[in-house]
Amino acid sequence: MADKKRTEIAELGEFGLIEHLTKNFKIKNESTKTAIGDDSAVLDYDNKQTLVSTDLLLEGIHFDLTYTPLKHLGYKAVAINLSDIYAMNAQPEQITVSIGVSSKMSVESLDEFYAGVHLACDKYGVDLAGGDTSASLTGFTISITALGTADPEKITYRSGAAPNDIICASGDFGAAYMGLQLLEREKKVFSTNPEVQPDLAGYDYLLERILKPEPRKDVIDLLNKLDVKPTSMIDVSDGISSDILHICKSSGVGCRIHEDKIPIDLKTSMLAEEMGINPIVAALNGGEDYEMLFTISQQDYDKFINANGGVNIYAIGYITEESKGYYLVTEAGQEIKLSAQGWKHI
Amino acid sequence: MADKKRTEIAELGEFGLIEHLTKNFKIKNESTKTAIGDDSAVLDYDNKQTLVSTDLLLEGIHFDLTYTPLKHLGYKAVAINLSDIYAMNAQPEQITVSIGVSSKMSVESLDEFYAGVHLACDKYGVDLAGGDTSASLTGFTISITALGTADPEKITYRSGAAPNDIICASGDFGAAYMGLQLLEREKKVFSTNPEVQPDLAGYDYLLERILKPEPRKDVIDLLNKLDVKPTSMIDVSDGISSDILHICKSSGVGCRIHEDKIPIDLKTSMLAEEMGINPIVAALNGGEDYEMLFTISQQDYDKFINANGGVNIYAIGYITEESKGYYLVTEAGQEIKLSAQGWKHI
Repeated sequence: MADKKRTEIAELGEFGLIEHLTKNFKIKNESTKTAIGDDSAVLDYDNKQTLVSTDLLLEGIHFDLTYTPLKHLGYKAVAINLSDIYAMNAQPEQITVSIGVSSKMSVESLDEFYAGVHLACDKYGVDLAGGDTSASLTGFTISITALGTADPEKITYRSGAAPNDIICASGDFGAAYMGLQLLEREKKVFSTNPEVQPDLAGYDYLLERILKPEPRKDVIDLLNKLDVKPTSMIDVSDGISSDILHICKSSGVGCRIHEDKIPIDLKTSMLAEEMGINPIVAALNGGEDYEMLFTISQQDYDKFINANGGVNIYAIGYITEESKGYYLVTEAGQEIKLSAQGWKHI
Repeated sequence: MADKKRTEIAELGEFGLIEHLTKNFKIKNESTKTAIGDDSAVLDYDNKQTLVSTDLLLEGIHFDLTYTPLKHLGYKAVAINLSDIYAMNAQPEQITVSIGVSSKMSVESLDEFYAGVHLACDKYGVDLAGGDTSASLTGFTISITALGTADPEKITYRSGAAPNDIICASGDFGAAYMGLQLLEREKKVFSTNPEVQPDLAGYDYLLERILKPEPRKDVIDLLNKLDVKPTSMIDVSDGISSDILHICKSSGVGCRIHEDKIPIDLKTSMLAEEMGINPIVAALNGGEDYEMLFTISQQDYDKFINANGGVNIYAIGYITEESKGYYLVTEAGQEIKLSAQGWKHI
């Protein structure tokens, strides 16, 4: 790091910094009339409805710069916002990016962050439409707002799940949580003995899940291709347990999640076992998986599974009447209540 | 303060806190289809174009909680975002509010903040459409995004100013800056001698300008009533100097600002004199006035001034060819170059 060029942010000034960071962003969507450079961006959504979602990421709470590459952080900050728009069965089109920059950061480190923002914008066809840049006396602060559009009849809320609907998930769970445990463990080792190199070999998948998650645009594209509209949908940021409860409470229904149907990657199980963590707990309460969790009527489910277009979808349970409550069904057939604070009974 | 009720945020939990803080917000705009409670808000702007603007406010940089009442802070955080939408000659309709909350804050202190947010939303007819709530290891962090609409032909960019247009301002300048100097002075006195009560008497106007600015919706309403569209517009957040330069550079024009035409309140001048600050410097570089600065063709200007509907508008200069540069004309007829870093030559 020591021989890398370091340009102080003060050398560019506020206006120079904004221009420097945003000059490579090209407008990709017809709906983006004007982006950066005025009091606000101007967008034209024609006859579609508009979706808006926002996330605040704070150093020390949401990320640790000692093991988070800034490029990955930029990518992830965008990805998790786009995930919220996809979770409405909609397409993101613009983002705004606001940052509070601590004095320990250089222009080059912000370039790394924006390289990640740029990559995510390119990959998902999204325009940078504005933002705010400020000094920060404390840590690095990131606030991103994503805007998207959808035909009104396609928008999928949390509130439409009905008894007998199948609960589906778009991928495996708990990997991001175990990736985080691994990074925290190696950080602790490093802090007590800086000579020891971190031992992360073989766990690329878990690290990728925590450091560079991908929003599931492919799932939304498949749903549209098959003309299947889920009855409800959410992206899993807090773990299956919290997020299925959001759907159940919005829809006024209950649920049964089957423990043996929850997809868990082998690496997640291996590291969980090594660290004495129950992998089911990681999947239910770990969070940050950014998989889609959705409910679908039984006839749509057959259609969906038979023509999955290379996207793996897992049926992990079903919706019940509200009076039946919210339960995990263990392999032994035992029913354990799910709770938003996390499922802490195993 | 000591006998006030203090509820720890942990008592409510994340989901409980969001519900608690947002339960009194009622939807006011037809365009707000759904607000809080899903992955994203759903908005319907029909045939209008959409405006989006965002601001990040950080403790210690943008506000000092030792002298900023939280209710005022909530009001101001909303007001300055709405100001950006008005500055496009558009109407704000929704905001999202994200906060990072340090552990020193109680539920009651957040209630104060949201009371201010609520008041601003009510006064300006804006809906709270979403947000994000997080813990913060450092200071109180606020990120607000405002969304608005306008007929495409009414949107006023920074880029339309032409030579001979009149430069107009909607109010006086430098008061917010002097209000801040006053608060900083009294804070210093208090920190060296806590027995001394702060001496703020007689300066209500300056304090209001820094602590509780009002966005100039009335100016936009007047423009619409008179069917006058400015050739360019910006809200003054960084001071006249920076902000007229934004217009000039976007429009490819020059300008002359007349020192003796810049409106400065008597209290601003009095305190500036007392503190040894040139009031013109406060007006040009102080910032945070949130007045509208706009350019208007000469024929529209006559129409505008003759029927001002109780709104005071001040002509402070005129637009020139770009080759003529950007200058302040002093009372003595001297020309002094304006710069975005601030005008430091007096």
